[in-house]
Amino acid sequence: MERVPILKIGDILLVSIQVDMSDQTALQLQEDLAERIVATGSHGVIIDITALDIVDSFVGRMLSTIASISKVLDAETVVVGMRPAVAITLVELGLSLNGIRTALNVERGMELIAAARSDEFEEDDQLDDAADAETTASP
Amino acid sequence: MERVPILKIGDILLVSIQVDMSDQTALQLQEDLAERIVATGSHGVIIDITALDIVDSFVGRMLSTIASISKVLDAETVVVGMRPAVAITLVELGLSLNGIRTALNVERGMELIAAARSDEFEEDDQLDDAADAETTASP
Repeated sequence: MERVPILKIGDILLVSIQVDMSDQTALQLQEDLAERIVATGSHGVIIDITALDIVDSFVGRMLSTIASISKVLDAETVVVGMRPAVAITLVELGLSLNGIRTALNVERGMELIAAARSDEFEEDDQLDDAADAETTASP
Repeated sequence: MERVPILKIGDILLVSIQVDMSDQTALQLQEDLAERIVATGSHGVIIDITALDIVDSFVGRMLSTIASISKVLDAETVVVGMRPAVAITLVELGLSLNGIRTALNVERGMELIAAARSDEFEEDDQLDDAADAETTASP
């Protein structure tokens, strides 16, 4: 059985999909990714699909599932490297990649993850500030 | 024909080999890499072989060729993610990966490339200093 390798670069896990995904390979990848996110404490997953000629409903569902799993493990998922023809076919087939962020290439994907993280921290700060304000206001 | 995708991360090109390399795929990868090094001005190439169960003489030669091509284009090549079994087989077969640097994972590979670059700059500086000293010494 083929196994898709997961590369760690700083705070991010990178997966480059190059082989045809079978049910088994897809399940294995989801498991491996979940384990690696927990083991490394990574905050982002980048999935590169440069090599894919077609993204059918099976692959689309796999990407959505990975994004959902990562989300509950506190990691952002970004799909990068989609070919123009793949994007056109996706829209024509009426497939929407639910809950998946996309970026043009790996570098932009990394920027997107970094931006998403800093937004989150700012929101946390605002909540903290609001809480502080309340504490101060109360007698 | 399958084409191995080349990802750009900062100053480095990253290739993850997951498919069986045919003559044609190997040639295409060498061409694509040479073009991308020139187009992007990258200083390093990282080749991930986590997915490979076997590195035979064909793959070994391909890696050596890529390293040589990159070298003349002023880029360092580092092979990362070699499995223990692959390393053992390589030695047993008497294959030496000529001119190829290796590192345990992508992150260490990046460090190796950064270190190799700074060594080079230091040597250049020393040459410059020597030239300066000569110029100063001459009347």
